Amino acid sequence: MNKLADALPHIKVSDAPEDLICYGFDASGIEIAPSAVVWPETTEDVVKIVKHAYANTIPIVPRGAGTGMTAGAVPSQGAIIISFEKMKRIIEIDQENLSVLCEPGVINGKLQRELELMGLFYPPDPASMHFCTIGGNVAENAGGPRAIKYGVTRDYVMELEAVLPDGEVIMTGVSTAKGVVGYNLAGLFTGSEGTLAVVTKIRLKILPLPEEVLTLLAIFPALESAGTAVSKIIASRILPRTLEFMDQETIRAVENFKPVGLPGNAEAILLIELDGHPSAITKEAEKIVAVCENLGAEVQMAEDEHARNRLWTARRAVSPSLYHLKPTKINEDIVVPRNKVTEMLMRLRKISEESGITIVNFGHAGDGNIHVNIMVDKKDEEEYEKGVSLVEKIFRETLSLGGTISGEHGIGLTKKPYIGMELSKKEIEIMKAIKKVFDPKNILNPGKIFPE
Amino acid sequence: MNKLADALPHIKVSDAPEDLICYGFDASGIEIAPSAVVWPETTEDVVKIVKHAYANTIPIVPRGAGTGMTAGAVPSQGAIIISFEKMKRIIEIDQENLSVLCEPGVINGKLQRELELMGLFYPPDPASMHFCTIGGNVAENAGGPRAIKYGVTRDYVMELEAVLPDGEVIMTGVSTAKGVVGYNLAGLFTGSEGTLAVVTKIRLKILPLPEEVLTLLAIFPALESAGTAVSKIIASRILPRTLEFMDQETIRAVENFKPVGLPGNAEAILLIELDGHPSAITKEAEKIVAVCENLGAEVQMAEDEHARNRLWTARRAVSPSLYHLKPTKINEDIVVPRNKVTEMLMRLRKISEESGITIVNFGHAGDGNIHVNIMVDKKDEEEYEKGVSLVEKIFRETLSLGGTISGEHGIGLTKKPYIGMELSKKEIEIMKAIKKVFDPKNILNPGKIFPE
Repeated sequence: MNKLADALPHIKVSDAPEDLICYGFDASGIEIAPSAVVWPETTEDVVKIVKHAYANTIPIVPRGAGTGMTAGAVPSQGAIIISFEKMKRIIEIDQENLSVLCEPGVINGKLQRELELMGLFYPPDPASMHFCTIGGNVAENAGGPRAIKYGVTRDYVMELEAVLPDGEVIMTGVSTAKGVVGYNLAGLFTGSEGTLAVVTKIRLKILPLPEEVLTLLAIFPALESAGTAVSKIIASRILPRTLEFMDQETIRAVENFKPVGLPGNAEAILLIELDGHPSAITKEAEKIVAVCENLGAEVQMAEDEHARNRLWTARRAVSPSLYHLKPTKINEDIVVPRNKVTEMLMRLRKISEESGITIVNFGHAGDGNIHVNIMVDKKDEEEYEKGVSLVEKIFRETLSLGGTISGEHGIGLTKKPYIGMELSKKEIEIMKAIKKVFDPKNILNPGKIFPE
Repeated sequence: MNKLADALPHIKVSDAPEDLICYGFDASGIEIAPSAVVWPETTEDVVKIVKHAYANTIPIVPRGAGTGMTAGAVPSQGAIIISFEKMKRIIEIDQENLSVLCEPGVINGKLQRELELMGLFYPPDPASMHFCTIGGNVAENAGGPRAIKYGVTRDYVMELEAVLPDGEVIMTGVSTAKGVVGYNLAGLFTGSEGTLAVVTKIRLKILPLPEEVLTLLAIFPALESAGTAVSKIIASRILPRTLEFMDQETIRAVENFKPVGLPGNAEAILLIELDGHPSAITKEAEKIVAVCENLGAEVQMAEDEHARNRLWTARRAVSPSLYHLKPTKINEDIVVPRNKVTEMLMRLRKISEESGITIVNFGHAGDGNIHVNIMVDKKDEEEYEKGVSLVEKIFRETLSLGGTISGEHGIGLTKKPYIGMELSKKEIEIMKAIKKVFDPKNILNPGKIFPE
């Protein structure tokens, strides 16, 4: 430790037990203490840290707010954690070119608010947006409810400043609207979970803020009809900005934790948001109401900001509220083609019934992205093992429907054992070879994503 | 040749002189005869061809319609050309999940028409859309006028089937709306100019067809005011679906070649298209008219399909019409930040005046993407050399304004000498190492993009 502090003068370094605890876990619940934590303030600081790690072959793990679900930011064995808490400047909001340049430690929600004040819009909105950082979003290629209409983080990354494992700094991508010079490294870094380079600056594309937003809540007596509604809405050529789904267990969990008046006897609700020109979205809303009502739903419209916020508070409370059902949540993040959502939910219900384990489902139905939560108690070893054993079964069903095992959470440590179910040996071999091109000493977040 | 035909029974193979001529050039004008041309009909055929090339270390170059501007599809020395003319099936249009699966030889314009009949929309629209193929679009990450609002090809690529140089087939990416499992190989292949893998199937995201389109033509007496209008439109929070620019020389060339009644004394025109809900775009059009008129422009509105087509015929005729000015066009494809378009056009005018060489500019002003055409006569050696010498100067000015040397044409052979002006040595070294991961024998479109 003294050695590290000596090697990095003027950079805050700690190996205090409380720091090693606080920076040793993320939202996956997995805990591995790092060897130290450092807080760079500039790219030059990051270069010094990385060069020291490279020279001494010490693993380094970049960390945003630790809201990741798959242990991507949990320390690799003996790793130094690079925390970006001090690199949180919004460097430039370029209104004429519609881009923003920022440091990785900027909180997503803070960036959203700053932009909204100027009539601008950064769409990706993970549920953790009020805590998670843009750097973490880039590492995981974060999505969020608005992905259905606006895409995910990668769709907004224009240019990245990145420190390579040997300490060299590159600026890759373009600060212009387009660019096709050489291979797409910025797109490769995005979603690489901190395994290829340490990102130190991020230029994001931004959009004009949509003129108006309209929120609908559709309450379905039957699960199947909610799934059918999702397909019908998309097939009717409407692209809502969110199309969120909560099943009965989720509704009850939220109502117990943070009551907002959702009906406990409904089998599913859809939270649908439209944005754009007032006449356009009013017309779209009418169509959606008709689709849902024909399927037996009761539809409410949130007319004002207060009503909208109430509904979104419920949606954002889902994740924490589930802990009131059971102490341990095995959290998956599958995606199936949109028109297979009903089928997948039916299969999940069957798996739950057969195993006797509660499975709670919610998520971005418009993307086919279902957050599947297997609710158990870790202290009940038998129950926990049974819960874990369902994961592979759920992934097998997902893949058989043409889906993917992770829509926005990444692989990290928790999904590493399953990656071979989706990717071929050849693909994994190529990806590991690409990792080696960037990181021949394997110091950057080692042990993540790929099985050894 | 007989050897090749023997090795590839049931696959059409030719080394007839007329085929070696026809498949030996692209729109760059560069000509290098291949050793043979093959026409696979299935992925299995491609596998056989690639395995033969791999075993015998013969270069292979995948080819769409040869509309590329930078010689990406021009044969590498001794190469076999893989023409995708027989692999042009639209395999599936999935209306519920908004995606289309097709083979690489499908013509972009044909796909557009098929989708439009179903109320669906594939936005990328290169000027050559009625000839160019989706496979070529993926190889070059093609853009087009609508990129300003809808992005480029890469924004639509969901999943690719690709044959690796050793003949192994991978399916990479996802058929779902989202997916973050492993590195983004589909995004890496897109824009890699056929140097990493031979793409054999492509799944593209599609959108609902916008309800209405409205086209405006703004005629500016002064070049500067057209540039200013572009900035002001974007800064006023309007995102048109196209914002095309033509300078005086371009207008005159088009009028000489295919008269549509454009005024020859204007210094610049902007062709602006809005799409969406009728009330929304009417309001936006009013704002745009006010911006342009305040800057001294005369604005016409194309109210019907006929008037719209007339204007677009003009825009699409630009490229061929320039040959009537001078027989040789040195065609560049720079991008600057949108608010630097005027400054760049001024610098181009100065370079033209100082050198005495005609430079014609048009392009996607809303993206800052200017197609710069240095007009010379190749037979006049002195003039040609002078023209070529301007390229580096233009790129230097582009980069000094924060731009990029290619927005949508790629690097191929023609821009290879200049790539080091934009990318660092380290970046090029990494990209070459990535190429080696995929293609250790360097048989896939060798000699393109990177200097030796």
